[in-house]
Amino acid sequence: MIIVNGQQKSEISVKDRGLLYGDGIFETIKVKGAMPKLWHMHLDRLVHSCNALKIAVPNLKHLQNDVDQVIKETGPNLVLKIIVTRGIGNRGYIYTGNEQPTVIVMSSPEYVTNERDYLNGVKAIFCETRLSHNTNLAGLKHLNRLEQVIARAEWQDPQIREGVLLDNDELVIEGTMSNLFIEKDGVLYTPKLDKSGVSGVVRRKVIETQEAAKAPVCIKNITKNELLCADSIAISNSLMGVIPLSQIGDKVFSISPLIKEIVSRNLHDCN
Amino acid sequence: MIIVNGQQKSEISVKDRGLLYGDGIFETIKVKGAMPKLWHMHLDRLVHSCNALKIAVPNLKHLQNDVDQVIKETGPNLVLKIIVTRGIGNRGYIYTGNEQPTVIVMSSPEYVTNERDYLNGVKAIFCETRLSHNTNLAGLKHLNRLEQVIARAEWQDPQIREGVLLDNDELVIEGTMSNLFIEKDGVLYTPKLDKSGVSGVVRRKVIETQEAAKAPVCIKNITKNELLCADSIAISNSLMGVIPLSQIGDKVFSISPLIKEIVSRNLHDCN
Repeated sequence: MIIVNGQQKSEISVKDRGLLYGDGIFETIKVKGAMPKLWHMHLDRLVHSCNALKIAVPNLKHLQNDVDQVIKETGPNLVLKIIVTRGIGNRGYIYTGNEQPTVIVMSSPEYVTNERDYLNGVKAIFCETRLSHNTNLAGLKHLNRLEQVIARAEWQDPQIREGVLLDNDELVIEGTMSNLFIEKDGVLYTPKLDKSGVSGVVRRKVIETQEAAKAPVCIKNITKNELLCADSIAISNSLMGVIPLSQIGDKVFSISPLIKEIVSRNLHDCN
Repeated sequence: MIIVNGQQKSEISVKDRGLLYGDGIFETIKVKGAMPKLWHMHLDRLVHSCNALKIAVPNLKHLQNDVDQVIKETGPNLVLKIIVTRGIGNRGYIYTGNEQPTVIVMSSPEYVTNERDYLNGVKAIFCETRLSHNTNLAGLKHLNRLEQVIARAEWQDPQIREGVLLDNDELVIEGTMSNLFIEKDGVLYTPKLDKSGVSGVVRRKVIETQEAAKAPVCIKNITKNELLCADSIAISNSLMGVIPLSQIGDKVFSISPLIKEIVSRNLHDCN
């Protein structure tokens, strides 16, 4: 089911700036038992992303109604995608600030991760594609996703579940569709996202939970070599929660008790 | 008038990857006297951009038919926009290669440049926004245009007609909607576009014409200081042709005979 600006329909204008320029943001949300998981964190990020791009924040009550309706019509378990674009404007890159945002709420079938993957971890590769630096866009889940499209096209093997992306400075940033955590000597690290990358809601959840447990995640620049020297690695996103990486390229990683704990906690929180 | 995949309509699916990821390319073409100007160069770039992103190249005969129909219905003078997206796919960044591209041909009202502007030049500013480096995307007119949207929002004064963009290395690349040419000691220069920027068709036209006249344009890295020390500057795009810059920020530029000649020649070729 798809709702566009409160109406059940599946198309938008070709003059929408979301299409013309990727001028918009999105959220991908796991719905289980009719509950959108980490809902307030997704809403927070949606509002933050709109504000960062100076896109009018949609009416959140109406958005909630749209989400409720999609869940009611589709069933209790699904993937929910919310897109907010700047809407329709005049020709050219300039916007007036008076554009009416386009709000799209759509469902896809439930995304199921094999239980084995949480226990044994999954395989990844290093991508050749590099993430560019843009301090205006870093952290936002915006609609300019060609870098991820190009990176994801680097492998076809379904056994490879993620591609690790470095930036133009050869620093490790994230996966094509996930954030990264590494453990070294009992400390958890995750890459800084001040120049590239998407600030994921599960990443935020892990950071906040660790903070509350007085075992804070260290957010820093991480080199490829530091990643390869990690004791244990995990990736996170809203659909999987946290999942260990058992291998990147040829390098095999063990799954530490700390990573196991975080995987398990997020299975509970996010699933 | 708008044609989507050969049908007169004005909407596309919200599942189109053009919207979801900016996974597509576009061309903006001046039509005058029912003639799409520099048509074969636009077609060339369209095909090149599709190939670079591994998007299926649309049937060019059908595309030509769509363009003819839009011109016939709209009138002889207009702005034509062609968008080609990868089309509709499954959820996620991965594509199969079997997606059917979405081809959109649409018209906007004629874009008229004041004759005075060709004679006296127009004013520009330096943007604070920096263009990021992406060797996969450099040169292509793709749909990931948030950098241009953000840069264009830096000024409101209608007297300012363009913003000059530097890249993350502080090199001069282009305007938000145009390419740049500078003249110094009788030689014409234009920035290298191997890491950022859009390779414009009028830029190509100028380069080829100068080459044929044995006065080749030097394509090189250009610093902000080199730009400010230029004798004369011009910007180019498909709708304006070539137009002199009389001022960038506080710095005033004269309009040299060579720039005048190129402006005038392109008035003839592109208008």
